[in-house]
Amino acid sequence: MAKQDKAAITPTRSDDYPEWYQQVIKASDLAERSPVRGCMVIKPWGYALWENIVRVLDDMFKDTGVRNAYFPLFIPLSFLEREAEHVEGFAKECAVVSHHRLEKGPDGGLIPAGRLTEPLIVRPTSETIIGDSFSKWISSYRDLPLLINQWANVVRWEMRTRMFLRTSEFLWQEGHTAHATEQEAIGRTELMLDVYRRLVEDHLAIPVIKGKKSAAERFPGAVDTMTIEAMMQDRKALQAGTSHFLGQNFARASDIRFQTAEESEAYAWTTSWGLSTRVIGGVIMTHGDDDGIILPPRVASAQVVLMPIVRKDKDRPRVMDYVDRLADALSSKMYNNRAVGVEVDTRDIGGARGWDWIKKGIPLRVEIGPRDIAGDSVFVARRDKPHRDRQSIPRTRFIDTVTDLLEEIQGNLLERARTYRDEHLQDVDDNVAFYDFFTPSDNEHPEIHGGFARAHWCGSPACEEKIKDDLGVTLRCIPLDRPDDKGPCICCDGNSQGRVIFAKAY
Amino acid sequence: MAKQDKAAITPTRSDDYPEWYQQVIKASDLAERSPVRGCMVIKPWGYALWENIVRVLDDMFKDTGVRNAYFPLFIPLSFLEREAEHVEGFAKECAVVSHHRLEKGPDGGLIPAGRLTEPLIVRPTSETIIGDSFSKWISSYRDLPLLINQWANVVRWEMRTRMFLRTSEFLWQEGHTAHATEQEAIGRTELMLDVYRRLVEDHLAIPVIKGKKSAAERFPGAVDTMTIEAMMQDRKALQAGTSHFLGQNFARASDIRFQTAEESEAYAWTTSWGLSTRVIGGVIMTHGDDDGIILPPRVASAQVVLMPIVRKDKDRPRVMDYVDRLADALSSKMYNNRAVGVEVDTRDIGGARGWDWIKKGIPLRVEIGPRDIAGDSVFVARRDKPHRDRQSIPRTRFIDTVTDLLEEIQGNLLERARTYRDEHLQDVDDNVAFYDFFTPSDNEHPEIHGGFARAHWCGSPACEEKIKDDLGVTLRCIPLDRPDDKGPCICCDGNSQGRVIFAKAY
Repeated sequence: MAKQDKAAITPTRSDDYPEWYQQVIKASDLAERSPVRGCMVIKPWGYALWENIVRVLDDMFKDTGVRNAYFPLFIPLSFLEREAEHVEGFAKECAVVSHHRLEKGPDGGLIPAGRLTEPLIVRPTSETIIGDSFSKWISSYRDLPLLINQWANVVRWEMRTRMFLRTSEFLWQEGHTAHATEQEAIGRTELMLDVYRRLVEDHLAIPVIKGKKSAAERFPGAVDTMTIEAMMQDRKALQAGTSHFLGQNFARASDIRFQTAEESEAYAWTTSWGLSTRVIGGVIMTHGDDDGIILPPRVASAQVVLMPIVRKDKDRPRVMDYVDRLADALSSKMYNNRAVGVEVDTRDIGGARGWDWIKKGIPLRVEIGPRDIAGDSVFVARRDKPHRDRQSIPRTRFIDTVTDLLEEIQGNLLERARTYRDEHLQDVDDNVAFYDFFTPSDNEHPEIHGGFARAHWCGSPACEEKIKDDLGVTLRCIPLDRPDDKGPCICCDGNSQGRVIFAKAY
Repeated sequence: MAKQDKAAITPTRSDDYPEWYQQVIKASDLAERSPVRGCMVIKPWGYALWENIVRVLDDMFKDTGVRNAYFPLFIPLSFLEREAEHVEGFAKECAVVSHHRLEKGPDGGLIPAGRLTEPLIVRPTSETIIGDSFSKWISSYRDLPLLINQWANVVRWEMRTRMFLRTSEFLWQEGHTAHATEQEAIGRTELMLDVYRRLVEDHLAIPVIKGKKSAAERFPGAVDTMTIEAMMQDRKALQAGTSHFLGQNFARASDIRFQTAEESEAYAWTTSWGLSTRVIGGVIMTHGDDDGIILPPRVASAQVVLMPIVRKDKDRPRVMDYVDRLADALSSKMYNNRAVGVEVDTRDIGGARGWDWIKKGIPLRVEIGPRDIAGDSVFVARRDKPHRDRQSIPRTRFIDTVTDLLEEIQGNLLERARTYRDEHLQDVDDNVAFYDFFTPSDNEHPEIHGGFARAHWCGSPACEEKIKDDLGVTLRCIPLDRPDDKGPCICCDGNSQGRVIFAKAY
């Protein structure tokens, strides 16, 4: 690998964090901007990561009894209007289909024709269209609970977009469930939040805080929104997944009624929960360093790259044979319920080859040359260690312990992220200290400062709004596990029943 | 199981084939019409079938070096216009996005607002938007071949829709590849057609004929379209998958150029190939009987249903324990690279329970009551046999041989379908016989008659069109394996170089 002392990504995180983010995505070949406003192209290296996330999550859903289905992309405008807060929340940013064909216009170019009598909305989320099906599928308590998930693309017409974090079209899953009792629906909301926590902590190696959203930050139409909040390396929060208890709001809007065991009639209690390609942005900003992304091994697009070193043509057959056999041996091992993913890179481009894989964030890079073969060993570098920190390992030992090594990296990434998060998560008890915490001083980085402030809040939307207006800081969540700890509100000194998390956020 | 002599589906196939199709879908719970014009809801039992098809196909794609990616849902109108035949082919049936928000109108209702300067088309297929990416990704022969697939939803605004077969929105995959040479691109077109053949014959148990489309039936913008054609039980053809050799047409339209090994510049040669949820319609119409669908075991939504029989409450724990252990034993077996899918149905609804599963087409139904347990055996019915044809099998033998039994059903379905297809595939050499073949006589069923006519064709579009106009019969394909067999054209008596397949079609 070429010697290189300067970082592989320009600018570095401390030079310009937002631009570092864009450059890391470019250098890793995860995705790129598309010519369609606000949309992105997810390239194979990025899509493979998403496929692994999908697989893990889908298995977890099914283990809890959820089944997949598919509902229409288009939602009639009248459906969206059935829930007042809901339509209010999405009307400002939705793609509207108005025509169903094109025809030659007066100047010869094609123009929209065949106007629809009722415009269709490209789904920003599917509560209303799925609610319509639920109203047909549910007639008795015996039909409950109904536990459905959909993998889909959705569209929210964002004005300021950022790859993975905020794009006009994105990929996600949306779960929708209906229950006979309020308690059961709340239980499902909590269960799915925990499924998200397990995905994000155990597979993406991103520590999160589980909590409830305040009324101001709730999903439009929900009674309660639960969230998992992660801290990025610029100390901003990323909402990584949300699970909504919808009460009977959408059941009333979509007329989802059932006959109870006691033969009376009742509205169902519903939930919805979603997680999107946005978490890939979270992976980048939690683990990435100034050399590029670092993929958590359990969901990495591939786990190992083999890079044969052939200096003389006569060595080639022997080296390639050794490499091919090693690739077979590695990919016959199972890791996180699938075969270890192995790439073989035979390009003859010098040190740039190793750097390409560093920037792509593959967990293990393995070089194999005639000298390694002579010693029946391989030369291994871990992406979570400095790039020069490489080790010769006997081939058989490497094969036998490759999944242990991957798990060690996985654990190390989570540990590092947790340490960083905890270093920048602090109790703040004083209004001045709070404002200081979120305002960079001269010796602080203008973009990387502050963190999560755990502060008392009286519960008033006015205090929440004042903080947002003054500092651009939002109430991320009311942690589920907060201790009973009375105190004065950080904003108004009023009574608070416990601390909440404030932070700047994506 | 309840005794029932009349068929479970009304009407039967011979009563009213198109209505039988709709009723089978309803009875099986595969899908339903949605309130959105031309769109359908794919219900869990149907979606699980699609998931299995996706998994098999995706593995086969990856084995040939294809990688998945994701491209925008929206296509700028100007992109679609880049290829003249292409836009001509799709302009008449595309959903047009014209606005990006909703606002209160004069009467208080919401109306579209935020008009887009350039309308966006909801992708009917993605050659032009993917071509745009390819033009950026490809600069040298070293970047080739580029082998990409996308799993996606697409929209074609169909005026007459039929569930699975023709809906305004449908799910599919579209593969797009670019190559340095014409020969290699043609080879890829053929390879992917064979992947489709393997999916459809080996997993869906539907025999197909591989062939080329005539110019009139080609994909808009393609040089050649290859197809696999299957015969349904009403003897009409279903195009189950197509693979297109695009020549340099789309490379010119999207400016996909590369530097050759000889350092000159050339346009790439591209292909595209797609298969959709339409094949589920093919499964229904190939294997279904008057009791409902019959799912091919290799892709069935589940393979086995266990139905405990509990007549006395005191028997319940013992029966349920036996059933649960059996379910565990069965689902620990692998079949077609995944665990055997087992459903346990404990509903106490009498004979309707068994009939539900017949209509759902599950390959194996197993009843377990106290008497079976006493004999340590299970009572097994196969969906490919008459419903009363049931067998007591020792439990351990059933567990040991369940995958053999599934394979036997799989083979039986393919064999039956092949026999039926071959019975209604015939050489027709005479113009009068040809017209007779496609015109029901008094003693023939008005809707189920004819079949595939293998007839000589001179190659003239005029003859093809006359046959279409006169009989509603289209040229399905020019079979790849047709023998060299000169003769007079079935329409004009002109010279023909070999026989082609004519049929009515979906």
